Amino acid sequence: MNLDSLTQSNGEWLRGSGPEADIVISSRIRLARNLSSFPFSSRASTHQKAEIEQMLKDRLVKLEAESRLDYLPLPALTALDRQLLVERQLISRELANADGPRGVAVANQETVSVMVNEEDHLRLQAMRSGFALDEAWTDIDRLDDLLEERINYAFSEEFGYLTACPTNVGTGMRSSVMLHLPALVLTKQIEKVFRALQKINLAVRGLYGEGSRASGDFYQISNQVTLGKSEATILTEIREVIPQIISYERQARSTLTRESRQALHDRVNRAIGTLRSATMMTSEETMDLLSSVRLGVNMGLLEDTISIPTVNELFLQTQPAHLQKLMGASLDGEERNSARARYLRNRLREAGPNLN
Amino acid sequence: MNLDSLTQSNGEWLRGSGPEADIVISSRIRLARNLSSFPFSSRASTHQKAEIEQMLKDRLVKLEAESRLDYLPLPALTALDRQLLVERQLISRELANADGPRGVAVANQETVSVMVNEEDHLRLQAMRSGFALDEAWTDIDRLDDLLEERINYAFSEEFGYLTACPTNVGTGMRSSVMLHLPALVLTKQIEKVFRALQKINLAVRGLYGEGSRASGDFYQISNQVTLGKSEATILTEIREVIPQIISYERQARSTLTRESRQALHDRVNRAIGTLRSATMMTSEETMDLLSSVRLGVNMGLLEDTISIPTVNELFLQTQPAHLQKLMGASLDGEERNSARARYLRNRLREAGPNLN
Repeated sequence: MNLDSLTQSNGEWLRGSGPEADIVISSRIRLARNLSSFPFSSRASTHQKAEIEQMLKDRLVKLEAESRLDYLPLPALTALDRQLLVERQLISRELANADGPRGVAVANQETVSVMVNEEDHLRLQAMRSGFALDEAWTDIDRLDDLLEERINYAFSEEFGYLTACPTNVGTGMRSSVMLHLPALVLTKQIEKVFRALQKINLAVRGLYGEGSRASGDFYQISNQVTLGKSEATILTEIREVIPQIISYERQARSTLTRESRQALHDRVNRAIGTLRSATMMTSEETMDLLSSVRLGVNMGLLEDTISIPTVNELFLQTQPAHLQKLMGASLDGEERNSARARYLRNRLREAGPNLN
Repeated sequence: MNLDSLTQSNGEWLRGSGPEADIVISSRIRLARNLSSFPFSSRASTHQKAEIEQMLKDRLVKLEAESRLDYLPLPALTALDRQLLVERQLISRELANADGPRGVAVANQETVSVMVNEEDHLRLQAMRSGFALDEAWTDIDRLDDLLEERINYAFSEEFGYLTACPTNVGTGMRSSVMLHLPALVLTKQIEKVFRALQKINLAVRGLYGEGSRASGDFYQISNQVTLGKSEATILTEIREVIPQIISYERQARSTLTRESRQALHDRVNRAIGTLRSATMMTSEETMDLLSSVRLGVNMGLLEDTISIPTVNELFLQTQPAHLQKLMGASLDGEERNSARARYLRNRLREAGPNLN
């Protein structure tokens, strides 16, 4: 796999299609698995970690899965390339910054990635655009089965899958849905939604792990409990709550349309105007402005001038590592702000001159 | 004089030419005069005010001045038309809002205006684009002489010209210069300049009389003392201090170019971008954004895309009364904000598509 080719596409999770794609960016399921014959990664020696990696890599690349997996050993990558994988949600920040033998196997369309020697020996992840947890589950379950035929997982009859951190024991499963909730933020109802989710043991975090005010109004909602529940139960719990949040967001959008359509129209147009004219632009501000644009497109305020896949692409391509890959150079913060603004100006100029 | 024709031009003070026109918007001199045979306006009966107006109007329209004066009786105008005259600096807000017989005589190019029955029976005013106090003085002095041949002014050998308010006694003269000082504002040196001016008895106020943070970074500097000094001394005092302020502003612009050229470029481009894309825009924000654009043009950051006379015109045409005249309708605040944004979008789109 050539990493540069990654920057030229959006990958699965920003494809901008799938059910409820105006609000649900992506659905993701990950499974934590460990080999029974090795200590957990944190207790394994470098030599053992190399053995684990070698063994898993062999199995992964030869797997008869639908789409071939390419294995990327992380120590062979530059810091920039590792950051690129983080921005694409293919690996965790922890794996990027760790030491020693470790890597990731990635499927062609980025629907599946498998981290090796993260907190657990294996972190399997399936991603789908839109609200598609069942499809993600089908993918990850099949992959898990295929691997289990070739590997002895650390498994206890009493607890289920054993994991390095007790919070993952049992199913080892975390299912999460990434939502774009700008109207709930604008109408100041987002905190209320969070509190309700926390009460039913669902966690909320931003696109790249931020707290309550997430960049670009992207929120990931995921299950916290992995033990004492079946995979099906976990899936059902989150699958049932997401439509409610979608409905709250749609109600908030209706409220905005009804009560402050002019202000919203102004906000969306100013966002486009600023993205088209600024000559310095931070990643944070870009995400906030693109969030307004995305809302505007989905509410029909920008007509045919820009598509959701393009907006999604701009979110990703303006992240620091992606931007530097695009520019073909390592850039400091100020240089990135200048390059980011230039890139956005050019891309949005292409998007057509008549924006209102 | 047809008031509608006024909205189609810029008038003298926004012509954007004359010495130091990048920083000095206009130079203005006014003289307060009263008739010896009538009580001051505040103490005159309506009947007496009507007599004063009739007499002055006859003299004014028949004056053999360079440019013919047209007389506009204010009670015959709508509130909107009176506001239009205020926005063009042809009459004071006080005259606009007063009662009873009163009016203004205006010269063709708006270089001269004469208010009748303001605080004083006569307020003569000459305006010039750029730093041109001497030329304004020549105009107003000639007009004053012409009038004095036909009218008995209230004059005391001891005090000079007598005026309704003691602060105007003596010369009855106020000379003022309107400056555009965005770089002193951006570099946070404007307060220091104000304090220095106050120490030498010069007053500072905004374009429409605001306090220390003036809309659009426009500041009027004027003399406060009218008594015990000759007209020539007053003129010299203000004429000598203005070049210093111009020099401070130029230094501040150099500092910006040296130390934060990128940030300035960004600011100017965002201003244009917002003016071109917003769909709601207050008068206050318009002036702030146009101030950045004006600075950008004068610092060569916007090349040939927009001229200073056009920027000046936009400042004036987006004022509430001008805007309503342009739209041919009476508009409430929200309608004005929408119409103003639409007008700016259209005007700036004409100004050429490539702005950076």
